[in-house]
Amino acid sequence: MSCKVILSKEISSSYREELKATIKSRGIKPKLVGFLANEDPSAIKYAESTSKTCEETGVVFELRKCDKEQLEDQIIEANDDDSIHGIMVYYPVFGDRQDQYLQNVVSVSKDVEGLCHKYIYNMYHNKRFLDEKQTMKCILPCTPLAIVKVLEYIGVYNAVLPYGNRLHGRVITIINRSEIVGRPLAALLANDGGKVYSVDINNVQEFHRGTGLKLKRHEVRDTNLKIEEILPVSDVVVTGVPTPSYKVPTGSLRDGVIAINFSAFKNFEDNIKEKASIYVPAIGKVTIAMLERNLLRLYDYYNCQSS
Amino acid sequence: MSCKVILSKEISSSYREELKATIKSRGIKPKLVGFLANEDPSAIKYAESTSKTCEETGVVFELRKCDKEQLEDQIIEANDDDSIHGIMVYYPVFGDRQDQYLQNVVSVSKDVEGLCHKYIYNMYHNKRFLDEKQTMKCILPCTPLAIVKVLEYIGVYNAVLPYGNRLHGRVITIINRSEIVGRPLAALLANDGGKVYSVDINNVQEFHRGTGLKLKRHEVRDTNLKIEEILPVSDVVVTGVPTPSYKVPTGSLRDGVIAINFSAFKNFEDNIKEKASIYVPAIGKVTIAMLERNLLRLYDYYNCQSS
Repeated sequence: MSCKVILSKEISSSYREELKATIKSRGIKPKLVGFLANEDPSAIKYAESTSKTCEETGVVFELRKCDKEQLEDQIIEANDDDSIHGIMVYYPVFGDRQDQYLQNVVSVSKDVEGLCHKYIYNMYHNKRFLDEKQTMKCILPCTPLAIVKVLEYIGVYNAVLPYGNRLHGRVITIINRSEIVGRPLAALLANDGGKVYSVDINNVQEFHRGTGLKLKRHEVRDTNLKIEEILPVSDVVVTGVPTPSYKVPTGSLRDGVIAINFSAFKNFEDNIKEKASIYVPAIGKVTIAMLERNLLRLYDYYNCQSS
Repeated sequence: MSCKVILSKEISSSYREELKATIKSRGIKPKLVGFLANEDPSAIKYAESTSKTCEETGVVFELRKCDKEQLEDQIIEANDDDSIHGIMVYYPVFGDRQDQYLQNVVSVSKDVEGLCHKYIYNMYHNKRFLDEKQTMKCILPCTPLAIVKVLEYIGVYNAVLPYGNRLHGRVITIINRSEIVGRPLAALLANDGGKVYSVDINNVQEFHRGTGLKLKRHEVRDTNLKIEEILPVSDVVVTGVPTPSYKVPTGSLRDGVIAINFSAFKNFEDNIKEKASIYVPAIGKVTIAMLERNLLRLYDYYNCQSS
């Protein structure tokens, strides 16, 4: 079998080592608080691995369980607590627009998940720095950022091309268009020069910067394409369908495709290894590393004076 | 313009530096003899730049001009001369099968161009070493090898994949099927896992190792495809058409294509930079570096005892 399976542990290890070394050498104690207001078993599992990784790398992690109705007040309290440097929430909480409201209750200075309007706005507009002098990089949402790091690690980003254009020539299909992962990811990859097909249950959208990357940031258009038409022309297929029954048909994929799954369920068929050149079955550990990396950024941006 | 133009000087520089350092530190004087038996201006130009590069890197280069009819005897004489470590011939000489005969007159131990039957056979059969213990790598033909190095440099080979499979998932069109460059190049790239379309005036052939690289070495099949059908699906287009009038239509190429020209004429239109992500207009300097690299290999394999 010629397929190379790459585990998220391998991809995340250099980031974890760097985080650990930085925290140790600087003698700092960045603190992250996670709010769990649901009974979702995958959220609980994610919280457990976050706790474990934080302990390993030197981040203080505190999980606070609460009722949905208390959550807003609890976030506000954490916003005001100088000993806390980062706040995250295990979504979905209400599963509707109220979740989006809660994302904006988290202080910009503590939003390790990069889900508040300011960060999301900058990301969609391909604005990469928070300040004019370009010293403070924007915070990017953890899971899309983790997928970018996966794509860098496995050679999809071409380092020969200039920063910001390194996906030029790549065709990437993303099966998921959630506001938390799929849609921001499509924007990020298109901003970096890729031609991205974004698939949800309704249609296929194309995110791109035009021929020769003539646009500064991506634009989106609806297409009439079917998923069976785009899979054979995709270099990379990224899936995040949250159901155990959904499977990408291996037969439709291009030989040598790069297959990445970020769903808690296996979205690729067992025979994916017969056709893919690279298969990344999960990305959880990279996401946690990015969460911590964002925490350290925010610590430096907003808390250095007070520590 | 987002296209990155990469010159062969940049690509070859690390090889030239390495050659220079190796030759200097070992205090050796490898000697290359080039036979010129035609009046082809591009051969004369190539001989001049070979001479210049050899001088820079510490290789002794001697150009011997002779009549076509004398060439065979002159090669045999050079074969027997222990002070000569490498022999090359500027083809075409007769422009027919007699050239292929001459390629086999050059001693295996001095064939820096990698054009004798033994090296060509090994290359087509994806046999990478000369010995059982795998200490002596095979000599590969210079120009195809140079194109491999160009593809490595510009990120087409994926170093995350195992050696020998690093082009898995890549679709590469080669417009040229000469015995010296196009056909061996198609075989090399297919052996490394690529799906290669080889185009000549008669048809399009496909060189590949099958779905999931199930074959150990490439196989070839004729197709009924037209060039207009394969250009839009090609990640990389390599051209070597020896006429000034031939141009690849930019309009047919995939946005973000990687365009490489090894012809002495510009085979891409001037607007290629509006569509390509990477454009390599010439590869001559890399070819000369590979010629010297082959010379050093042969020096080590066959001449170390006597020097």
